[in-house]
Amino acid sequence: MAQIAVMGAGSWGTAFALVLADAGNDVRLWGRRPEVCDMINAKHENSDYLPGIELPAAISATPDPAEALADAEVVVLAVPSQQLRSNLEAWSEHIPADAVMVSLMKGIELGTHLRMSEVIAEMTGAGPERIAVVSGPNLAREIANREPAASVVACADQAVAERLQKLCHSAAFRPYSMTDVIGCELAGTAKNIIGLAVGVCVGLGFGDNTKASVITRGLAETARLGAAIGADPVTFMGLAGMGDLVATCSSPLSRNRTFGEKLGEGMSVEEVTAQTRQVAEGVKSCRSVSELAKANGVEMPIVEHVTALVAGELTPDELVRRLISRTAKPETV
Amino acid sequence: MAQIAVMGAGSWGTAFALVLADAGNDVRLWGRRPEVCDMINAKHENSDYLPGIELPAAISATPDPAEALADAEVVVLAVPSQQLRSNLEAWSEHIPADAVMVSLMKGIELGTHLRMSEVIAEMTGAGPERIAVVSGPNLAREIANREPAASVVACADQAVAERLQKLCHSAAFRPYSMTDVIGCELAGTAKNIIGLAVGVCVGLGFGDNTKASVITRGLAETARLGAAIGADPVTFMGLAGMGDLVATCSSPLSRNRTFGEKLGEGMSVEEVTAQTRQVAEGVKSCRSVSELAKANGVEMPIVEHVTALVAGELTPDELVRRLISRTAKPETV
Repeated sequence: MAQIAVMGAGSWGTAFALVLADAGNDVRLWGRRPEVCDMINAKHENSDYLPGIELPAAISATPDPAEALADAEVVVLAVPSQQLRSNLEAWSEHIPADAVMVSLMKGIELGTHLRMSEVIAEMTGAGPERIAVVSGPNLAREIANREPAASVVACADQAVAERLQKLCHSAAFRPYSMTDVIGCELAGTAKNIIGLAVGVCVGLGFGDNTKASVITRGLAETARLGAAIGADPVTFMGLAGMGDLVATCSSPLSRNRTFGEKLGEGMSVEEVTAQTRQVAEGVKSCRSVSELAKANGVEMPIVEHVTALVAGELTPDELVRRLISRTAKPETV
Repeated sequence: MAQIAVMGAGSWGTAFALVLADAGNDVRLWGRRPEVCDMINAKHENSDYLPGIELPAAISATPDPAEALADAEVVVLAVPSQQLRSNLEAWSEHIPADAVMVSLMKGIELGTHLRMSEVIAEMTGAGPERIAVVSGPNLAREIANREPAASVVACADQAVAERLQKLCHSAAFRPYSMTDVIGCELAGTAKNIIGLAVGVCVGLGFGDNTKASVITRGLAETARLGAAIGADPVTFMGLAGMGDLVATCSSPLSRNRTFGEKLGEGMSVEEVTAQTRQVAEGVKSCRSVSELAKANGVEMPIVEHVTALVAGELTPDELVRRLISRTAKPETV
């Protein structure tokens, strides 16, 4: 197997490090805080993010990025999406020239509207054959519990995707390979916005029909934008599209769904932010995605309505009613 | 609007009659039991199936099929799928020669392996332009509560699908039109089997990742069979495919999911059947669909594993583990 650096010891970075160790790799985990790294090395536990999970002995942690990156064949990036650029600025000299970089991040950079793989390319100069994405229905806590799950490894170079796929295939984690990096990243970004809309429906007291309709139509409009910006529409039917969206919208643990739920119950964006002490990813990205859709001549009613809701131009009830009562037309338009 | 006969006063037949009445049609509802019809006419309620719901005055009920069918422009069929053939044998002489027949039923006829639209064609001699299907994420109770929902109206003749679409478009119910009858019917049948597999995961204690993976891979294998038997793969991404599947797999009210859950908890098919006093649709149809897949050279691991589980050849835990640990490969294969 391989020497792998996982950069970021949050819940998903740590859980994916566990998958890589289960699959037989030697994993060095970089964490920002030395005390977290010490705990992982001494007690094999990351109690801040995955309390109660015993981490495999093949994982060692360090707060020194140069140490984590030394001789790494694969570099997994799992930092907050808005910090990727500054992190890579500090790290790029230590990343081995032939290492493949794998993004676990979901989001679009504010201001530039760049996807994470584009930020990686810009900051490291790596070609598409050295940049990959892992995305799927992968709630970190369940992965750490070794509950059976599947996911997608995407790289423009299919052979690289297949090599990575083998490196992260464990008894409980089943990866599939594909080449559609754009589709994976767009799906991961849009699902937060759709999850927010689903949360609004839940907050208003609507049931499984309404949720399923919003999920389905939300994925359809994401696939339309995807087709316009070079993604493969089939990706949206897969684990990184439908799979991740369904897991997010089903889980009461999802931050975006919870945020939407509170909006549906009548709280304002400011009130929810104050209460939860964070802004859900969907709140941050809805305007960017809405702008991207308009620039490409694609109609995305759910994203547009969520953007209007977040801007205070629409009530939650109006959002749901307007989405349903739009003029009847063929499904695939 | 139109004069419409709804044949079958179960929960979905009654709820769809309510949608049609809300949309402005004159609806005659046929029910097998005279006392149910009397209650609907006198009290505007079907307390056996939708207690507490006030039915619109535009719905009148009758136990006389000839009376229900007289002058009907549209005939909606909502009887148990295994009784359709005998019902149509008795009714066909009363069905107006130009009436369009709309199936609300999901299932495959035992023995013949025919879809419901094929049974209708065989028993009435109607051409494809007179046979339609309505399918989507439509749990009857939520539709009756007028919670916002969307659905699909499919007819080989797009103009007929669009006419039906207008006839059932109400403030809360948003129909989309399409021509893929085969895809709608296959999706409706397969989702019961996949719902059963999801129930098994729930019964074993697995969470949202596992469920989302099974849902996603289940839809992918259904789409593969669909493509082989003449369905449009895009249908499976829509409301009749993904939408209905997600609603079924999310709802604790779903009979198939519940049945699978009890299997996952360790009960046998016989024990669950005895306890619930009914056999879930997925238990009945898994072998037929499995045979259809084999005949068409299509691999359907989830359907095959459910068939083996139901036959007692596999434990629930083996089912889930085997589905996840299959050899890694590209996602779209």
